[in-house]
Amino acid sequence: MKIKGQHYHTIWINSTDPSVVKVINQRFLPFSFQILELRTVDDVYMAIRNMAVRGAPLIGVTAAFGFYLALQNSRENGENQSITGIANKLKSARPTAVNLAMAVDRMLQSIKKSDLPDEQIRIALQTAIGLKNEELENSRKIGVYGLPLIENIANHKKDHQVNILTHCNAGWLACIDWGTATAPIYMAHNKGVNLHVWVDETRPRNQGARLTAWELGEHKVPHTLIADNTGGQLMQEGLVDMVIVGCDRMTPDGDFANKIGTYLKALAAKDNNIPFYVALPSTSIDRTLKNATQIPIEKRDPEEVLTVKGWYDNHSAYVRIAPENTQALNYSFDITPARLVTGLITEKGTCKPNREEISYILS
Amino acid sequence: MKIKGQHYHTIWINSTDPSVVKVINQRFLPFSFQILELRTVDDVYMAIRNMAVRGAPLIGVTAAFGFYLALQNSRENGENQSITGIANKLKSARPTAVNLAMAVDRMLQSIKKSDLPDEQIRIALQTAIGLKNEELENSRKIGVYGLPLIENIANHKKDHQVNILTHCNAGWLACIDWGTATAPIYMAHNKGVNLHVWVDETRPRNQGARLTAWELGEHKVPHTLIADNTGGQLMQEGLVDMVIVGCDRMTPDGDFANKIGTYLKALAAKDNNIPFYVALPSTSIDRTLKNATQIPIEKRDPEEVLTVKGWYDNHSAYVRIAPENTQALNYSFDITPARLVTGLITEKGTCKPNREEISYILS
Repeated sequence: MKIKGQHYHTIWINSTDPSVVKVINQRFLPFSFQILELRTVDDVYMAIRNMAVRGAPLIGVTAAFGFYLALQNSRENGENQSITGIANKLKSARPTAVNLAMAVDRMLQSIKKSDLPDEQIRIALQTAIGLKNEELENSRKIGVYGLPLIENIANHKKDHQVNILTHCNAGWLACIDWGTATAPIYMAHNKGVNLHVWVDETRPRNQGARLTAWELGEHKVPHTLIADNTGGQLMQEGLVDMVIVGCDRMTPDGDFANKIGTYLKALAAKDNNIPFYVALPSTSIDRTLKNATQIPIEKRDPEEVLTVKGWYDNHSAYVRIAPENTQALNYSFDITPARLVTGLITEKGTCKPNREEISYILS
Repeated sequence: MKIKGQHYHTIWINSTDPSVVKVINQRFLPFSFQILELRTVDDVYMAIRNMAVRGAPLIGVTAAFGFYLALQNSRENGENQSITGIANKLKSARPTAVNLAMAVDRMLQSIKKSDLPDEQIRIALQTAIGLKNEELENSRKIGVYGLPLIENIANHKKDHQVNILTHCNAGWLACIDWGTATAPIYMAHNKGVNLHVWVDETRPRNQGARLTAWELGEHKVPHTLIADNTGGQLMQEGLVDMVIVGCDRMTPDGDFANKIGTYLKALAAKDNNIPFYVALPSTSIDRTLKNATQIPIEKRDPEEVLTVKGWYDNHSAYVRIAPENTQALNYSFDITPARLVTGLITEKGTCKPNREEISYILS
């Protein structure tokens, strides 16, 4: 999508020097837009670990390019880096991200096609670029399939304005381009649909305020930031026409884990008869899950609740919002049951959140 | 309730010099506990305006004492301050607070009993103290009537531990003592019931994190701070036994306005079959309301959403959490329909949230 009028991906190979991979550094967004140059596997490891890149699809693609950089440097510098060592290092950057391990395994698999180092480097680059293009295409298709849902609402409203609520950042910054929850939004906006997005700030890490508001703003999509507490009242007042959220992991029955607070918005949407959609690549549907209680709810550092990160006096700072000695609990995700969901938007099409339709999508 | 082991009210007449009214200065809580001395009607006006005192019952009582201070200073300094002028000044400190105007009108009414300035001062002090005692008694009785609800849950749980979720600060800091939502909690805690409170941080102004966590901590009530997004998931996991919230204004049918986000917690409580109680003085039930759409939803400064106030480097500071130029909407309240409420806890007893039982309580 666009930043200051220019089209970007979140990651790309330097056009003049393919030994450099560039990424948007998300650590200082929205206050400072920086491009980070990754030249070594250590650079890539740190970029993932420090969350300069974040979002499951982007982490996977970045790791894939990291694998390529490692092979190339190994060849150029005559280092004898073990391929298993590279793979393990990359996988350990954020151990809980499934896409990360999957991407690295795919790189390992791909270079088995050749024993020649130069050929392995060529294959690695090709595979990383292929993975990037796949992720990009997944997002684009989610947009294509989600677009008619928005257009349909626009067509049936007197003022043709569609108000969409989203939670957290399931935006293009988490992917390569388009995003997941945001893909139908960008596509509808690009097509001239009159839409407006309610952006939940998404405490405790404020990805909505810091990232979603920023990317929508840069792409000129009209939006308004709200406290997480606000969406229910807006729905009661008829100011929300649909909800689109992302998904971290979904059971074959359509129950899903997503950023903490998603469940509350789904309840409010149901109570007000507002369509509630989950946008996700089909790879986020985990066939091995019997039910949602098998999805572990990650608990993060309580400091994220006790403090707020923001911008102060031209630098990034944490302010404390609670008394000293206060205990806090910091859940990253909650579970939203399928009964509250209107439909799924995947790269393979839309479907109802039930076992039958989901298995059809997966087949 | 207690602060560092000592019992406090939020407001009191100086024991040695009745020309000084003391209040807990809530502006720098939880980071700095200060007592503010109010000597003039201007001091009182500023304390209310700057939110050194806040919460409808406390604002009303503070204004009443301000009226008394004005009369006394007028007499002592030979100033000829108009009584109407004093009343209007106090009422204008926070024009939307109904309790404020009601308290001032009551003071005006009371001093009509005499034409003698000294007698008026005596009556004014007496009336202000009476109002304070009434508010205190309201809170205490809410505690008395709410206590059995908590004890009942404790008795029916194997571990006898009661987990109570509350939103915003309907605590003793907003009242004289005990609070409203917190009154049954303090009373149960004092009686030795094993309870624990989930404290919603309550964005955008974080009254939960700043005030509720502080007052519970000072009174040694076990509690845990959570992001507003978290309560739903805790309920799904069986970690919440009941919800108690305060109320700003209620219709005779039991629909009510309270801090933004209350509605979402009520939906989650209903979805998980968890009792949801509203604690309120019966004066918060407005017989003149036909329905909840007549309650205006106050919109506050968007800066409260775009920034977070906290403590940084030993001083109070605002950090910005959203990009420059981001628009925000800041609703103070939402409406929770009576159908989501299990019961009301008032100073006159508990009742179901329907017109019949509410009118019985009011009669």
